[in-house]
This record gives sequence, structure tokens and C-alpha cells, in this order.
Amino acid sequence: MKHHPSHGSLRSGRLVLFLAGFLWGLHALAAEALPSWNDTAPRRALTDFVDRVTREGGADYLPPSARVAVFDNDGTLWCEQPMYPQVAFAVDRLRALAPQHPEWRRQAPFKKLFEAGPDRLVSVSNADLIEIIKVTHTGMTTEEFAAVVRDWIATARHPRTGRLYTEMVYQPMLELLAHLRSRQFRTFIVSGGGVEFMRVWADRVYGVPPDQVVGTTFKNRYEMRDGGPVILRLPEIEFVDDGPGKPLGIQKFIGQRPVMAFGNSDGDLQMLQWTTAAAGPRFGLLVHHTDSVREYAYDDPSSVGQLNAALKAAPGAGWTVVSMKEDWARIFPWAP
Amino acid sequence: MKHHPSHGSLRSGRLVLFLAGFLWGLHALAAEALPSWNDTAPRRALTDFVDRVTREGGADYLPPSARVAVFDNDGTLWCEQPMYPQVAFAVDRLRALAPQHPEWRRQAPFKKLFEAGPDRLVSVSNADLIEIIKVTHTGMTTEEFAAVVRDWIATARHPRTGRLYTEMVYQPMLELLAHLRSRQFRTFIVSGGGVEFMRVWADRVYGVPPDQVVGTTFKNRYEMRDGGPVILRLPEIEFVDDGPGKPLGIQKFIGQRPVMAFGNSDGDLQMLQWTTAAAGPRFGLLVHHTDSVREYAYDDPSSVGQLNAALKAAPGAGWTVVSMKEDWARIFPWAP
Repeated sequence: MKHHPSHGSLRSGRLVLFLAGFLWGLHALAAEALPSWNDTAPRRALTDFVDRVTREGGADYLPPSARVAVFDNDGTLWCEQPMYPQVAFAVDRLRALAPQHPEWRRQAPFKKLFEAGPDRLVSVSNADLIEIIKVTHTGMTTEEFAAVVRDWIATARHPRTGRLYTEMVYQPMLELLAHLRSRQFRTFIVSGGGVEFMRVWADRVYGVPPDQVVGTTFKNRYEMRDGGPVILRLPEIEFVDDGPGKPLGIQKFIGQRPVMAFGNSDGDLQMLQWTTAAAGPRFGLLVHHTDSVREYAYDDPSSVGQLNAALKAAPGAGWTVVSMKEDWARIFPWAP
Repeated sequence: MKHHPSHGSLRSGRLVLFLAGFLWGLHALAAEALPSWNDTAPRRALTDFVDRVTREGGADYLPPSARVAVFDNDGTLWCEQPMYPQVAFAVDRLRALAPQHPEWRRQAPFKKLFEAGPDRLVSVSNADLIEIIKVTHTGMTTEEFAAVVRDWIATARHPRTGRLYTEMVYQPMLELLAHLRSRQFRTFIVSGGGVEFMRVWADRVYGVPPDQVVGTTFKNRYEMRDGGPVILRLPEIEFVDDGPGKPLGIQKFIGQRPVMAFGNSDGDLQMLQWTTAAAGPRFGLLVHHTDSVREYAYDDPSSVGQLNAALKAAPGAGWTVVSMKEDWARIFPWAP
């Protein structure tokens, strides 16, 4: 048998070139899909995982029906500092309603907000916040509430950047949402925020339709009025979609266990646990706010975004931790 | 100016022929989309509506995001006689669990079920039924419950036809679900039945994924066990998705008002009201059980399927009423 070493070498050479080209191609594809992510471990972990579970015939292949990804909202998809945008909404709403409620100027917890003046931040306890949310978010129909949110979100601005809140969204996460959907993932929001607050703008801003937004709910009542039926928002919280409430919200609204979960605080701990503590390919990710120049650096403030237990659990659970400073080339769609 | 009457006539003739061909084509398309529907008013109303709201540039055009259709389940998508399949499941489950609960043989409301013997129907009040459902549907994890339902639905049979319950589905409605989805409608189930009972098989049987099933829910609890986190089903009903609960379930889970609603009983009245009492193109339909030979004829029994208020409201509200006997050429996928 005649031996052709040169021929063999040529073949190997071609193979190496082909493989190099292939790997370079994958790399380029990842950069194309997630251009605002630096080429660090989190981007590679994400694109590797998505490639792995969508490769037909692969050991970890998941059919499209199993491709469910869940995202926290505040601090994960948009900026939650210096306060949750929904709290800013509640405070603005309180001030707008104040002329009809002179008693608020003498009544806790509303009193201190009026004493603080329109531009000063005040710290309110969770119990105070619930009172504020009740008087600003209920006692009207669902359609009236949606109209109020629509007006507010079109004009209210972030106190530091002067940008609309809907511009304070994270460009790398918008790219990730789009990348996942291009691979037939369904992308759900699972947030402690009010579901009817988010649904008004989540489709336009994130491409997430109303039925894929899970959040905290108030009790409602169906009523016949002269003009026809209405749904009235009652001042009673029905379900709190936070902490251990997140897996319960997932079970109730989505009805299947996700395979990917994205959060940024201890309120997301159980959602990541529930998503990743099961057989088969699983992916958990925490966004760590480490960039005091381009955004905020925090993980344990007194008010929002405490990230302590979840950060400690991450290495053992195999969750990816994103440092916004190191891993994101760009933070907002408009600049830094 | 020269006048060519013959030319004009020829043109008109062509136009008439073309229009006739076009109408015949639409007619053939409707028959193709909904072959198990007779060529009576309901089929024409359905296909006309769907054509109208999906025709780009038309006055009634709805973008895909607005194309939401909601379907009751029991009596609308599958047979609810001689009892709701979920009640049959609860009774079977009660009997399966009985050896571990000797006290049930002496305790109301369980006692009379055991006295009746395995094949006899017994009438139970709604309050009794809730007790039966509590002991058979709760006190286990969500995954355990899903496994129990999966086993039952794979083997349990309808007492009259001997068919699997998943074969007791209405072929005309399966065709309608498929037709709507082919026109980019999202099709939701909105049922008084338990959401975790339906989600196990609704995707396979109706093509409706878990997150598009809305139903009655129990309270759950998130718990850490040795083997990892579980969601435990508690014996407390959280939300009843029936009657005025249906618009509330729609608002909570779907978050937008549907444009089409399909039901068969007074439990669907408010869902049809809410769907159709709004601006823009709207469609409501009631399935009337009129075929005692191929299925059942009923609208006001003591137990299930009361259709009284909704049937009275139909003409004024412009809802389509389907007579199963007259309007459906075939009822089940397998025969009559």
C-alpha cells in the first residue's frame, strides 16, 4: 500500500484550518449576537449554553417547548437606583392626587413625602410603601390605571441621567432577550413589581407581551357599570411575587420549570434555586452592580438590591456572576 | 368618444366570473380550514371574522399582538357529561387513596361515594366536591401531582363510550384552534377546572402550552427538602376561575382583553361579556349541547353545564350560538 504522508499532512492542515475557521465563526457569531458583552466568561457561558441546548441531536438538546427563560426586572433589565421606578411612580402619583386629599399632609406615611419637597428622596419602610401603593395603585379600573401608567412612563425621567425610565434599560440584556428569542426561547419577566404596572410598556421596551409578565398582583373585582363591565382594582395585595414567591409565581403563571433564570438580588435567590436545582441543562445568572461610574456600585444598601445570600450561593450552585464593570462593554442603549 | 358596449359587457362578465371564483375559493378555504363544521351560519361567521381582522389594510385589521382568543374547557373543548372529567379523576383518586384512609368510609362527604360502589354515579354538592378535591389534589408536591394526573389521563375512560377522556374532545374545536393559530392568534384556555390538572395534557391534546392555560388555583408553598426545593400544594383554594372569576383570571394571567371568546355555560357569561363589550371587532360564541345521539342534549341540568342566562343574552350581545346537532358534521375525532 502506497503511503502519501504529504497528502495526510495536507488533510490535517485543512482540518485545522477548518476547525480554526469554525471556532472563529462561533466567536464572531457570539459577538454579533451579544455585541455589548465583553469577551469574558459570562458571554461565553451564555452563548455556549444556548448553542448546546439548541443543537439538534446533541446530548443536551431541549425542544422549543422546554425553552423557558425568566428575568427579574428591577436591577436586572433596568436600573433600580436611586429607587425602584415604580416607587417614583407611586410618589409622583401621590403628589398628583394630593389636591383631592388634603388629609394626607397630616397623615403618616404620606406626610413626610410632602415635607421632603418634590425633588428630595425620602426613605420609606416596606410597610409605608404598601400604604402608598394602595392609595396610588387601586380604587380605579384596570383601564384607568393602565392609562395613568402610560402617561407617566412617557414623561417621567431618571433623577440622575434625566433619561426616560424606559431608556434606563440594560443594552446587554436587551441583546440577550433577542438572542434567546431567536433560538425559540420564550422570555418571561418574573418581578416583585406590580404586574399591571409592567405590562403597559414591557412589550414595547423588552418585546415581552403582557401574558409573559409575572409579578405582584392586587385583588380585582368584576363589576357591571352603565357603560358596560369593568374590572376594579381593590386595595388588597393578592400575591407577592418576590423571594420564595417567585417560584410560586412561575408555577402559577408559567406552569413549567424554566431552564434559565436571571436576577440581581436576594429576592431572586429562590427563583435561581428552583430553576437550576433540577435534572438536565440549567443556567443561572446574577447581575452584580459594580460600576459606580457608568451606573451604580452596590450589593447591600439599606433599601434596594441586597445581594448577599444569592452571591454566596452562586459558586456552589454554578451560577454565572456578571460584573457590570468588567463584563459589559456598554450599559445603556444611549451611551455609557 | 367611441362607445364599446360589448367591450364593457365582456369586462363585467369577466368581473362576475372572477368574483364568483373568488367567493367559491373563500368558501373552499373555509371548508378546508374547518372541515367538521357544516356550511351553516356559525362557520361562516367564524371564518368571515377571522378573515376580516387578519386582512392587512382592512378597517378591522388587528395586529398579531391583539389576536387573543379564550376558550372554556369543560363542555366547550371536551365532553363534560355525565360528570366533569376532573370530578371523575377526584373520585378515582379518592378510591385509590382509601386504603390509607379507613376513616373516609365513615366520614361525610366521602362515605356515600364508597357506599355507591365503583361504577355508580353519585351526586355531590359543590361544597362536598371542594372537600373531595382538597384531599385528592393537595398535600403533595406539584411534580407528584402532575405525575398522578399523567397516569390517570393515560388510562381513565369515559363511562359511556369507553374512550380515553383525551379522545372525548370536539373535532370542530380542534380545527378552530388550529385555524386561529395559523392566523397568528394566541389561543388560551380559561376554565373553572384546576390549572395544574389541565396543564399536564393541554399541550399534547389541544396544542395549548402550560402558560396559556388559565384556571382555578390552590395556594402553594415553596420548601427546601433534602433533595432540593419543592413546591407543596396546600389544601386552600386561592382563586376560582369561574363566572365573574373568568374576566379576573384573564386580566391576571393574560393581561389583555381578548377579541374572541368561546364557552358553553353560564359560567362563561362574564367572559363573553368582558370580551365582546369593548370597541373594535369582537366575537363571542356559545356551544349548545343539542345532540342526544352523538353526544348529549342539555342546557339546564342540576349539576353541570347550565346554559340559561348566557343563552338569553346571546341575541342582544350578537353572540353566535352553535347547535352541535345542526352545525357540526362530526363531533369527536374518532367518529360520531
